[in-house]
Amino acid sequence: MREVYVIGSGLTKIGNLWDKGLRDLAVEAGLAAMEEAGVESVDAVFVGNMMSGILNAQENLGSYVADYLGLSGVPAFKVEAACASGGAAVVSAAMAIKSGLFDRVLVVGVEKMSDMTATEDVTSALATASEADYELFWGASFVSLNALIMRAYAQRYGLKEEDFGWMPILMHKNASDVPYAQLRFPITMEAYLSSPKIADPIKLLDSAPMGDGSAAAVLSASERRDGEGISVALVGFGSATDAMALYTREDLVELKGAKLAAKRAMEMAEVTPRDLQVLEVHDAFSVMGYLNLEALGVVEPGKASRLIESGDADRSGSLPVNPEGGLKARGHPVGATGVYQFVELYRQLSGRAGPAQAGSPELGAAMNVGGTGSNVVVTILRRVS
Amino acid sequence: MREVYVIGSGLTKIGNLWDKGLRDLAVEAGLAAMEEAGVESVDAVFVGNMMSGILNAQENLGSYVADYLGLSGVPAFKVEAACASGGAAVVSAAMAIKSGLFDRVLVVGVEKMSDMTATEDVTSALATASEADYELFWGASFVSLNALIMRAYAQRYGLKEEDFGWMPILMHKNASDVPYAQLRFPITMEAYLSSPKIADPIKLLDSAPMGDGSAAAVLSASERRDGEGISVALVGFGSATDAMALYTREDLVELKGAKLAAKRAMEMAEVTPRDLQVLEVHDAFSVMGYLNLEALGVVEPGKASRLIESGDADRSGSLPVNPEGGLKARGHPVGATGVYQFVELYRQLSGRAGPAQAGSPELGAAMNVGGTGSNVVVTILRRVS
Repeated sequence: MREVYVIGSGLTKIGNLWDKGLRDLAVEAGLAAMEEAGVESVDAVFVGNMMSGILNAQENLGSYVADYLGLSGVPAFKVEAACASGGAAVVSAAMAIKSGLFDRVLVVGVEKMSDMTATEDVTSALATASEADYELFWGASFVSLNALIMRAYAQRYGLKEEDFGWMPILMHKNASDVPYAQLRFPITMEAYLSSPKIADPIKLLDSAPMGDGSAAAVLSASERRDGEGISVALVGFGSATDAMALYTREDLVELKGAKLAAKRAMEMAEVTPRDLQVLEVHDAFSVMGYLNLEALGVVEPGKASRLIESGDADRSGSLPVNPEGGLKARGHPVGATGVYQFVELYRQLSGRAGPAQAGSPELGAAMNVGGTGSNVVVTILRRVS
Repeated sequence: MREVYVIGSGLTKIGNLWDKGLRDLAVEAGLAAMEEAGVESVDAVFVGNMMSGILNAQENLGSYVADYLGLSGVPAFKVEAACASGGAAVVSAAMAIKSGLFDRVLVVGVEKMSDMTATEDVTSALATASEADYELFWGASFVSLNALIMRAYAQRYGLKEEDFGWMPILMHKNASDVPYAQLRFPITMEAYLSSPKIADPIKLLDSAPMGDGSAAAVLSASERRDGEGISVALVGFGSATDAMALYTREDLVELKGAKLAAKRAMEMAEVTPRDLQVLEVHDAFSVMGYLNLEALGVVEPGKASRLIESGDADRSGSLPVNPEGGLKARGHPVGATGVYQFVELYRQLSGRAGPAQAGSPELGAAMNVGGTGSNVVVTILRRVS
């Protein structure tokens, strides 16, 4: 089977970017990735996006992004898997290369959430990741579904309010020197504890902000070593689905899809959780970040908060987690998030992470979660040198 | 490179199906395809859909469809390419098999356009296939953009009003005995000529109806011969993009993306237009059907209406076109249409087309068009016996 290498990356600042539209964001990230890769063309484009139809009155994003990148003619599709759309686009691009039909593929994740042109509000748009008839119709929002998970998780493992604070505190600390991050300021445990609840027990400071952004990567069947002889290979990827509606799951707290996706990716990469040296996890809410760490198998169930509290997950720790600040503080432009994670992992492994560089990791994984765990994509990158 | 075979198909009736939702349709078609294939599981699911977020307040369709098919756990994504979403999902599934990572993949195309739950109307939703800022914002609808193409085409080749009537007349004739077709009645040239214009020069009877429906196919790396020793292989596929906004194209009448997609598919299949024995084309509007035939290279530019008028495109003709009635009369449930075309082609080649069977073709092609030609997918099937 053919190898897949990451040969370039690009991303935009994340935030409520009133002066940039869907098109501007995708083009900025896409061109940056192609420039870093040193290429002027690609064989195909995959766009990860969740809500452009609802929020921007724009579908057909494959053609749209290809056209405005000056690539019109190439095959180009949009891939959607709720908040895992970015990861799904990465995996689609990797399969396209492995099929032998394409040698060099561009992945662009993009979401434009503020300044929307359509009539739906963002909360309703996000809720389309859940089950329309049996969850949304009855008034559940995406936050309230995650609140059910958090409550069950806290109860099962006897966790207290402050146990959930360690995740956002570390994320804000990490993001504070990341130029493109949305929330570049630290928060304290006091601030966390006094933060208002938006869906009990989820606090405002448990929740990723709403933002616009785009990230992109160029994948290639051919290796491309940098000046220091380093290249990065996508050695494993796996994805899995789980029950769509939360109430139909056997266990609110076990993310079966996340475990399955992690298992598939690790089998493909022929690695175990112990081999991983840096992680990107999907902390849309603090509890989801913890459940990701547990599904990856790097910590026992119920112990994720201790991993973060102990300092082991710091940039200087034994297993850095989200060194750029994660969804909570780097930001969460939904359909782009999986590509941000992938790009950040690539930058960590190739020593391009700048102030966020967390040592010199050789192997890392990113977990991108859609819905309340109903669609999960895991990618594993390895440094080759 | 691995081969890809079609081993099962399923579809629902098309229409304004007030008693069936998005879920019901996808499950009905998906289960039918798995039953025809004689399989109880698949390795992955790709869902072709364009507007579920806008019209049904439901995204995350990969997880959704997998779950309600009893397949939860498998990798599953939604693929979107406007009206070519179905074809895009077929191609994604084919690449997944060619990658060597999956052996058996289910493709489900689905669109639920009537009885929508969200606030947008269908015309606005369809218009998201066009350019939001430079076409929609100024009042162009999807129909009016196609009207510009029709006007330019008629002018260039000196075509009259009735020249465009041959396409819908044949489509209605073909659909009249197809059990799942939406419009099962013939129309006359008189009816066509007196049909009201909905965006001059496009008449109501030039236009595909709005309908709900789902079609599905099981693709496999392993051949499966039926009782008569026949199997069907996906021997070629190609896709291409073209300029998103119509006004930025060099030529309104030349579908560059369609030509490129056809060329790629034919090169992969190692065939020429002369080898094709049955066609499925994307006649969302009569002119688009004609332009598809010309882009496929089976007729000279400007001569497509004569091909239809001559009777050569009849079921009993030398090159049957849309023997089940095409988008115009079989129906056009947008994101499902590409899968309907693919399934119909499969049924023609395997002798399963029932009353619509058009001889005994061995090689055929389907062209699925998104936007005003901005995203096009061509698939080529061959009978193996």
